[in-house]
Amino acid sequence: MEESSAPTSKKGAKKAEAKAKKEALKAQRAAELAAAAAANVADDPAKDNYGNRQTITSAFSQDSEDVEIRALDETYDGKTVVVRAWLQKSRIQSAKMGFVELRKGGNWDIQGVIMASEEEPVVSRQMVKWVASINPESFVAVEAKVKKPLEPVKSCRVSGLELHITKCFVLAQAPATLGMTIRTASQPIVNFSDESAQVGNVDGEKVAEAAAENTTPAASMLTHLDNIAIHKRAPVQQAIADIRIEVKKIFRTYLESRRFKEFEPPCLIGAASEGGGNVFRLPYFGEEAFLAQSPQFYKQFEIAGGRERVFSIGPVFRAENSNTPRHMTEFTGLDLEMEIKDSYTEVLSTLEGVLLSIFRGIQERCADEIDTVRSVYYSEPLLLPEPGKEVRLTFAEAQKLLREEGPAEFSNVRDDEDMSTPQEKALGQVVRAKYKTDFYVIDKFPETARPFYAKLDDAGTTVGDGVRVTNAFDMFLRGQEVLSGGQRVHDPVELEARIRAKGVDPKSAGIKEYLTTFQQVGVPPHGGGGIGLDRIVAWSLGLPSVHLAAYYPRTPKRLLP
Amino acid sequence: MEESSAPTSKKGAKKAEAKAKKEALKAQRAAELAAAAAANVADDPAKDNYGNRQTITSAFSQDSEDVEIRALDETYDGKTVVVRAWLQKSRIQSAKMGFVELRKGGNWDIQGVIMASEEEPVVSRQMVKWVASINPESFVAVEAKVKKPLEPVKSCRVSGLELHITKCFVLAQAPATLGMTIRTASQPIVNFSDESAQVGNVDGEKVAEAAAENTTPAASMLTHLDNIAIHKRAPVQQAIADIRIEVKKIFRTYLESRRFKEFEPPCLIGAASEGGGNVFRLPYFGEEAFLAQSPQFYKQFEIAGGRERVFSIGPVFRAENSNTPRHMTEFTGLDLEMEIKDSYTEVLSTLEGVLLSIFRGIQERCADEIDTVRSVYYSEPLLLPEPGKEVRLTFAEAQKLLREEGPAEFSNVRDDEDMSTPQEKALGQVVRAKYKTDFYVIDKFPETARPFYAKLDDAGTTVGDGVRVTNAFDMFLRGQEVLSGGQRVHDPVELEARIRAKGVDPKSAGIKEYLTTFQQVGVPPHGGGGIGLDRIVAWSLGLPSVHLAAYYPRTPKRLLP
Repeated sequence: MEESSAPTSKKGAKKAEAKAKKEALKAQRAAELAAAAAANVADDPAKDNYGNRQTITSAFSQDSEDVEIRALDETYDGKTVVVRAWLQKSRIQSAKMGFVELRKGGNWDIQGVIMASEEEPVVSRQMVKWVASINPESFVAVEAKVKKPLEPVKSCRVSGLELHITKCFVLAQAPATLGMTIRTASQPIVNFSDESAQVGNVDGEKVAEAAAENTTPAASMLTHLDNIAIHKRAPVQQAIADIRIEVKKIFRTYLESRRFKEFEPPCLIGAASEGGGNVFRLPYFGEEAFLAQSPQFYKQFEIAGGRERVFSIGPVFRAENSNTPRHMTEFTGLDLEMEIKDSYTEVLSTLEGVLLSIFRGIQERCADEIDTVRSVYYSEPLLLPEPGKEVRLTFAEAQKLLREEGPAEFSNVRDDEDMSTPQEKALGQVVRAKYKTDFYVIDKFPETARPFYAKLDDAGTTVGDGVRVTNAFDMFLRGQEVLSGGQRVHDPVELEARIRAKGVDPKSAGIKEYLTTFQQVGVPPHGGGGIGLDRIVAWSLGLPSVHLAAYYPRTPKRLLP
Repeated sequence: MEESSAPTSKKGAKKAEAKAKKEALKAQRAAELAAAAAANVADDPAKDNYGNRQTITSAFSQDSEDVEIRALDETYDGKTVVVRAWLQKSRIQSAKMGFVELRKGGNWDIQGVIMASEEEPVVSRQMVKWVASINPESFVAVEAKVKKPLEPVKSCRVSGLELHITKCFVLAQAPATLGMTIRTASQPIVNFSDESAQVGNVDGEKVAEAAAENTTPAASMLTHLDNIAIHKRAPVQQAIADIRIEVKKIFRTYLESRRFKEFEPPCLIGAASEGGGNVFRLPYFGEEAFLAQSPQFYKQFEIAGGRERVFSIGPVFRAENSNTPRHMTEFTGLDLEMEIKDSYTEVLSTLEGVLLSIFRGIQERCADEIDTVRSVYYSEPLLLPEPGKEVRLTFAEAQKLLREEGPAEFSNVRDDEDMSTPQEKALGQVVRAKYKTDFYVIDKFPETARPFYAKLDDAGTTVGDGVRVTNAFDMFLRGQEVLSGGQRVHDPVELEARIRAKGVDPKSAGIKEYLTTFQQVGVPPHGGGGIGLDRIVAWSLGLPSVHLAAYYPRTPKRLLP
């Protein structure tokens, strides 16, 4: 099996070459076997029990039971079953015997045995050859008797049982040569650049060193994307996708149980309302349209429209030409907005609660999947605060902590200027050391670091050179921002003043309609926040790139597949 | 209260004018009352018990209970409660007494009474005047004693209780003159055109006649969108939004319980893969990007990637310059794709099952909301087939039925040509009369009416002039298509042949990558379908336009708000 791997060291390159040669030979041998088998089919007493098929209607015994590999346990011992699965490995042992490995449901695999037999059900030597030479990653349906192996099959997850195959049909044939094998796809990705000429980022290099020690060559993200089906079939990607599903589910369940209602904000909008810099523009029936950078205004319209508590899960777009492991041009936003009864801390507690519920929830419900991910991408287990001991710092407190306990380069950070990414990361380490948590909230950001809709705090508190603080906060995971939120200005007079104070024209497109909504009707006090789903998944698993958490990562150079 | 209504008949116009004058007078009176009240505030013994506030922290008694209007029942009789709500009506009865109506949670409303009292808690005459002149649609928080009224309050949903107000704060003030009143917003919309100059569509005219008989003037969709908050606050829109949420929830729950996994297909794609006609294009870092017209290819990539059964809920885009009640440029797609074990009827049954589950589910769970919608937009209740008596016709059978039992104009429809929209509607009536159902499946479409990925049936059946039929189907509701689905070609050789047969270049952008995925790996037999969420909601409720089912309808002329 040959593959377009991307070795990142000389040692790696040589190993990859040797590997490729070996796999090419293996492929050749498999092809020869297949040809020989085909020639013999005509006079084969078992010829109706194997082969390529488009459908398998009535190909199996009436009394065999359809079963998923994950469901196989000792109660099946001795039974005849039908299993549909990916054949991930095939090996001929002798003229009379061969082995295969079948995989389904992410990373559930089991060994299959094919043994010549003259008794019913007949298994011919041709059939043994044919089955043992099926190309890996073909989709097969087999009828088999479930038996206990002489000793546990270490290489498979279902180790206490094996399948003695009596019928085997290939429903979808993989080619003899795959663009990337499932083993390579299961190695840590070494290079996340979306330009093939570029060298990997820092995280990628670390991973590459580890990969170089390994016998299976690793591949770049580009190779993975060029082989999207194999990329997805790898157990590590199956696990990440399953965890992502669980994160969404917990977000939704947590909010629905608190009377939040889902809604769908539009992607196509008539104005670049949140700053024109990073917005995609498109021709729209003789006019111009824009792709939403966030559902911010629409969440607030829902509150104005009496929906009380809303959330949305959907795509948002950023036209940033950033080729980093933190950026994508399209990602999934988890957003919420709610009426405030007495204080914006209701919003803060809800958001803190939903995030902690997500982090704790996946640790409970996805323990297997997290193990699978960590076996490929090692990370320190997440440190979470004990209930009631959540860490909430004001922006000024956080900056003080960074000045006093952070690296020397940050000994002069100011309380009235936004944090940089390196500052955030350094703070994450200080907080971890001091409070034993990877998750914390920073509240009361200075207004210089927030958009016009952030509400100034009621007490009139100032920091630094007399800069007002806001009822706005960020939440962090392992030193990276995963959530931004706060109370919004709901009074139209105050809102117009804040818009002007930020140097924005209240009559400009988008802003005008936004402000008008507040003037047209009374809008109750409210607040909310937004979470990047891809980042939550990536950072909670300690993945080296957010691209691994996405189904189809979109980057400035890459929109395919 | 003045409003920009759009009367559609002379009779309607006169009524609207009279109405507008009456409301203007009312607004003037309210303003006078408010001014008088303000003048008296200074020497008011109750002055701390009412007024405009930004926050109401500690404004209420410790022993009052926060409660939602929907939760109020006889157990609250005699208790002191705090209620936050929209004030939808205010009326002064005498110098000592006034009435208000408070609304929250869609269409839960209750009467509030404000009565002067010298005993504690003191309610002054100024306070009575002030409360009774609050502008409708302001957001208020009141403290009140719950009492049984002398007789049931017919105008409110909570008719067996009323609130005797002792404190009342306006948290968000609505202007004296609304762009549209909640009463107008609760009338059937008369004109769905997105160009103000154009006359309404056929459905709109019918609704307009009904509206002309009514005392409250109706408004056009444009007026509703210009007053988005009031549009949304109207109980009919709250009900539609709540039903829409339930439709999504049932779709998701039904599929998750059958081991389907959610995923997010991208919106930004690198090629106009499903025909270039109706696709939005945008500049993308020096290249061109497109907005996805459906998640079709990506659902199939998930199947190729071993995800077995997947679904997605997300936006899709069509650059169609169609100003009709059936079209939007952005809408929400509900899509699924699944491996097939033995036959494509597994896919058909799943899709039929999920739709019936949705239609039956909302009738059970949203009975109140459906009543609210039907009180504004009357429709015949949905006729659904009894379990086990679902109607499935082949395309040829459907055409025969239309020829034989449909209108004369359709007596020559062919079995090898796609149906037109008028044909579909006529067939809907024939099927309803014959089978007593508004929901049915039409299967085995001729290949001339389907895209290249539709799988030809195994039996080689032909219709008309020797046209092959496919394992593809549509599902209809009230004579309108709501779902398109079927088995897909999974064999790469067959797929390439079908692509060529449709006159598409297999090497063209997007198609090449699609075909490559099938060639790179074995992809098992699979099929699926796509549903338009907006249409499902609109047609199941018999709404005159799909725009009513959307949160923010996008049309060729309208991207705001």
